[in-house]
Amino acid sequence: MGFNILAELERLRTEIDEISIKILNLLNKRAEVVKKIGLEKEKLGIEISNPLREETLNSILCKNNKGPFSNEAIKRIFKTIYDESKDIQINKDNNISNLKIDLGNGIFIGKDCLPIMIAGPCSVESEEQLDKTASFVHETGVKILRGGAYKPRTSPYSFQGLGEKGLILLNKYAKKYGMLSVSEATTIENLKFVEKYCDIIQIGARNMYSYPLLEAVGQLRKPVILKRHFSATIKELLLSAEYIRKGGNKNIILCERGIRTFETSTRNTLDISSIPILKKESYYPVIVDLSHSAGRKDILNSLLLAVLGVGVDGIMVETHINPDEALSDGNQQMNRDEFFDFMKIFQKFLDLGI
Amino acid sequence: MGFNILAELERLRTEIDEISIKILNLLNKRAEVVKKIGLEKEKLGIEISNPLREETLNSILCKNNKGPFSNEAIKRIFKTIYDESKDIQINKDNNISNLKIDLGNGIFIGKDCLPIMIAGPCSVESEEQLDKTASFVHETGVKILRGGAYKPRTSPYSFQGLGEKGLILLNKYAKKYGMLSVSEATTIENLKFVEKYCDIIQIGARNMYSYPLLEAVGQLRKPVILKRHFSATIKELLLSAEYIRKGGNKNIILCERGIRTFETSTRNTLDISSIPILKKESYYPVIVDLSHSAGRKDILNSLLLAVLGVGVDGIMVETHINPDEALSDGNQQMNRDEFFDFMKIFQKFLDLGI
Amino acid sequence: MGFNILAELERLRTEIDEISIKILNLLNKRAEVVKKIGLEKEKLGIEISNPLREETLNSILCKNNKGPFSNEAIKRIFKTIYDESKDIQINKDNNISNLKIDLGNGIFIGKDCLPIMIAGPCSVESEEQLDKTASFVHETGVKILRGGAYKPRTSPYSFQGLGEKGLILLNKYAKKYGMLSVSEATTIENLKFVEKYCDIIQIGARNMYSYPLLEAVGQLRKPVILKRHFSATIKELLLSAEYIRKGGNKNIILCERGIRTFETSTRNTLDISSIPILKKESYYPVIVDLSHSAGRKDILNSLLLAVLGVGVDGIMVETHINPDEALSDGNQQMNRDEFFDFMKIFQKFLDLGI
Amino acid sequence: MGFNILAELERLRTEIDEISIKILNLLNKRAEVVKKIGLEKEKLGIEISNPLREETLNSILCKNNKGPFSNEAIKRIFKTIYDESKDIQINKDNNISNLKIDLGNGIFIGKDCLPIMIAGPCSVESEEQLDKTASFVHETGVKILRGGAYKPRTSPYSFQGLGEKGLILLNKYAKKYGMLSVSEATTIENLKFVEKYCDIIQIGARNMYSYPLLEAVGQLRKPVILKRHFSATIKELLLSAEYIRKGGNKNIILCERGIRTFETSTRNTLDISSIPILKKESYYPVIVDLSHSAGRKDILNSLLLAVLGVGVDGIMVETHINPDEALSDGNQQMNRDEFFDFMKIFQKFLDLGI
Repeated sequence: MGFNILAELERLRTEIDEISIKILNLLNKRAEVVKKIGLEKEKLGIEISNPLREETLNSILCKNNKGPFSNEAIKRIFKTIYDESKDIQINKDNNISNLKIDLGNGIFIGKDCLPIMIAGPCSVESEEQLDKTASFVHETGVKILRGGAYKPRTSPYSFQGLGEKGLILLNKYAKKYGMLSVSEATTIENLKFVEKYCDIIQIGARNMYSYPLLEAVGQLRKPVILKRHFSATIKELLLSAEYIRKGGNKNIILCERGIRTFETSTRNTLDISSIPILKKESYYPVIVDLSHSAGRKDILNSLLLAVLGVGVDGIMVETHINPDEALSDGNQQMNRDEFFDFMKIFQKFLDLGI
Repeated sequence: MGFNILAELERLRTEIDEISIKILNLLNKRAEVVKKIGLEKEKLGIEISNPLREETLNSILCKNNKGPFSNEAIKRIFKTIYDESKDIQINKDNNISNLKIDLGNGIFIGKDCLPIMIAGPCSVESEEQLDKTASFVHETGVKILRGGAYKPRTSPYSFQGLGEKGLILLNKYAKKYGMLSVSEATTIENLKFVEKYCDIIQIGARNMYSYPLLEAVGQLRKPVILKRHFSATIKELLLSAEYIRKGGNKNIILCERGIRTFETSTRNTLDISSIPILKKESYYPVIVDLSHSAGRKDILNSLLLAVLGVGVDGIMVETHINPDEALSDGNQQMNRDEFFDFMKIFQKFLDLGI
Repeated sequence: MGFNILAELERLRTEIDEISIKILNLLNKRAEVVKKIGLEKEKLGIEISNPLREETLNSILCKNNKGPFSNEAIKRIFKTIYDESKDIQINKDNNISNLKIDLGNGIFIGKDCLPIMIAGPCSVESEEQLDKTASFVHETGVKILRGGAYKPRTSPYSFQGLGEKGLILLNKYAKKYGMLSVSEATTIENLKFVEKYCDIIQIGARNMYSYPLLEAVGQLRKPVILKRHFSATIKELLLSAEYIRKGGNKNIILCERGIRTFETSTRNTLDISSIPILKKESYYPVIVDLSHSAGRKDILNSLLLAVLGVGVDGIMVETHINPDEALSDGNQQMNRDEFFDFMKIFQKFLDLGI
Repeated sequence: MGFNILAELERLRTEIDEISIKILNLLNKRAEVVKKIGLEKEKLGIEISNPLREETLNSILCKNNKGPFSNEAIKRIFKTIYDESKDIQINKDNNISNLKIDLGNGIFIGKDCLPIMIAGPCSVESEEQLDKTASFVHETGVKILRGGAYKPRTSPYSFQGLGEKGLILLNKYAKKYGMLSVSEATTIENLKFVEKYCDIIQIGARNMYSYPLLEAVGQLRKPVILKRHFSATIKELLLSAEYIRKGGNKNIILCERGIRTFETSTRNTLDISSIPILKKESYYPVIVDLSHSAGRKDILNSLLLAVLGVGVDGIMVETHINPDEALSDGNQQMNRDEFFDFMKIFQKFLDLGI
């Protein structure tokens, strides 16, 4: 009897194999149509992805579903099919080469460019602090000065930044030393000021999910650094970038700055693998904010070589003329000497010409 | 020889014990002064916590530090002392009883109140959808109608809500059935509309870190539901609440809605322990958004009893006249029958009168 | 021209719909065959799942795949199909009612039973400590005494337990007060002693992935409490249980004890949603270790009502005659008075008769 | 009146400053004694850390504590002091230079050595598979062959390895090509076989918390690769290493292999920052298992340069003569051509002579 059952099992398995191959062939046939749709859409200039379309198709499937799979099971299986199909459309974009973004002053980031360094204090605190810091930053050859004027701080009692006054100072001292400037916008209101005074707009990690702000940035044409939220998946970061790109601003630089995990030795866990994945799955340049990733200065030099090795397009770090008296994030800002050592390693890497 | 070393070890340990007790006594002496400062500040109406003060003290300590502890080690040790000292000041607030917030229409939440239910569709989609949904929601005895008009969606191609038109509909049908209304504001701009049309303002999880928006809410006096970001610690949620309270708006309702973890069986991991902790560490009412926590309908009835057991002040859930055709989050919205079963359990619990 | 493209788009979409429905029908046809295979296997008493079979089928599919989907994409899509198909086989098991496990002494856990309480010290430390603790635990009506003899401690310099001597004491004092005993086995070697002296074997969270140990437990017939690793998904816990069941031991009690997340207010994050999910996806009783989940005593009473509300089959907690002098986990063990309060709440819930 | 209060506030703050400086001085005095104890212990050859000692001191402190700080608060503050004090003792060890471990065959890892490569199939599957794979691995210059014989698999129905037979094959083909061999032990029983047939013993991530197994390894003298559990903190990994070292086996190689986070683009999140931290906080060599970290082959070449940049002592990867037919982890094993490309990058880096 057991023998008959085994024979029956074998027969059923062959049936499964045959049905599976039929499904396989239909999947590929479907993928061919998806590719065609992608080409048509490209002609029209419409976006590739369209979740409402998926919802419509799901309704059709649920109406036609007679089981034994539940509607939920069918939706889950088709979700995988939709996801894989998107990749087929996106792969088509591989013809589009990676972006090279003009930041101004003859400085470019992205395709065929050497990695760039962005440095400066966490916050603009005073004329003297900024002048002195900008001076030694410039001395090392850095071309882009960072400095926060609108600081999103966890506690309402922490220093919140100098606002527009900070931006004016940043603009003044970036110009004094012939550098470009970058600062963070946190609302649609202060975005106007950041755009007015800075060469590059930064959207901080905490605002990666602030879609109306991203849409407002999409209306501008200045380059924007979009930081990954500390709990955002790579996919969510790319969808946030899409909020900007959809408005017409393609000058997007993605920035990994560490994700929140159970590990507490570092402030965040630098997700080094996200860099090659972001470069594969998008055509935007990718930079890393080392200071926020590590939250400690003693491993920055090691991490610098890691991210250069992995092929990052740029690096952002914090440095301060006097970190012990900094009004924010003093622990993670390098002082002058530490920054000079750091830049020596960076320069040595550039000299290797890899 | 080993014996001499052991004796020496014993002597050194006694020395450690003695120094430790001296430190202990100084710590408590310091705590007494901290308490006095808290009382003085209360007279002045100043905030309890002041991180700038900590930074100043850290500078003093670093200047006086002769080692062997490094400045960083000293700062870490004192950070613990600062943190524990804050608790001593906050404990004082235990005299202030927990809040009871007047939501309007004779409905209250918080101290000495029975838990309330907030229900409605994820998004306001159309006049018909809202009317029908509000009708059966009202039928079960629910007093507060929810419905999104400004939807923060991960993809820019998902349905983004009806905006002001959605708020007008929400207002109309809440009134038709004698219910209060709650909807989410996502920018300082649309906050004005939410305040105009709704009885309760919701700040969604994605905006828990949008401090300028929180400050704007702090200027209002309408009750606000502040949702915990899916990657926010309990402490960060309380600090975000402080951004609102600082502006003068104490009508804050905290909302747990699940945190992001490695587990994928649920959309988020409902952090049930956060509820008693939030109630201990603040005087705000605490509610739970069950739909977003679970992201699946089949366990809602079980979770309802869990959060009622733990002593929640309210519950928020999503229900839709036709979830399969919902424009957002169809999977997690209960249909009419499911919602009636859910409410029967809720009512049964209320009847127990525990 | 744009119009023609739109018409073409529409045509292609209809084609997608049609192919999708064909795939849908084949998926359900395949599911029917899968169900039949499940029934045949049941006759033979073979396991339901068989990953090697999936690997074979994947090879067949890869050989037949002509693109545009890559082999990896096809494997990912079919993985979803395999996963959903398993559920169809397992759903069949819904006829098998949930387990009711005989623990001895007329005590049962699971289907149709009231929730049981398991309590006792973290570690067996001495005859006096155990006698006194067991005495007041018994006084509250608890029927099962816990106590660790082999303690897996993060640091090699922490107290590691009394070993066999501890088990002998546990056995002695459980019997003295007419209670059952449970203790943890950490190796195949000490499993023999735990089986000899205890009524219930515990596999701790750290050993949930120790498959040879699980297989050894599968050869026994004594009831076993299998704790979820603090980083294990629900699926992994069920697969670990399957290592035991496969050997013939079905007397498995699953135990949620908190998972590791970024939140630090609690030692672990109690994953309350895992309880209804585990009860849906398996037929094993589910208990919760409240002490390890919370890691703090002040919220245990609240959490107790949460897990009772959610429908747990049992609860495990730690209590100690003198927690301040405990050799392990003193912070999270209740003292006598705290435990009496805790048990009053438990008894009150039982009296409600829900 | 407000003025008087402000003056009083100022006075109280000065008092806080003064007490804080006294605490600071006592902390440093205490640290001096701790250093002396460390020196004495070194003479005796006793371990540095002793948690029981901390528990004793905590009891003393609790007995002497008169508030306002609670006993819990005092214990938390002193925990920070204990932790920082340990670092002072460990810093002393900086005199001890990093380890250089003799692996046999004239191959060393660690201090002053070039990074080494360990490669081979996930599992030993057959004589032919291993011979072919070992052949091309050897061709690229790799000196150490890996291959699993005891496979801890999440599902009991997955291929579990060939056991001792697999080890015999591994030994045979490592010798044939003049390579060293490494394989994983999963129980105290099979550890004997791994030690007998292999040059290096591997403890897998799932067994990092299996302390009795670690203690058994500590009794041996063969080099051991200790993998970090995917949810282990850096500190826990070091404490697990201490279980081995305590037994007398100092030939420990730590292995980062990715941690479990919410990100799903990679199988695990490679914690690149752990490498410089492990090298700072211990004197063990540190390697990275790239295959398990990434779980996908397409980013291995990028990650290779990242870990080489950060200064890793070695790399482990999986390669298979025919990954599509592999019995385990086929997706993440490189085929011959992919491995040759990978090794070209590795060789190029070595040639740079950095």
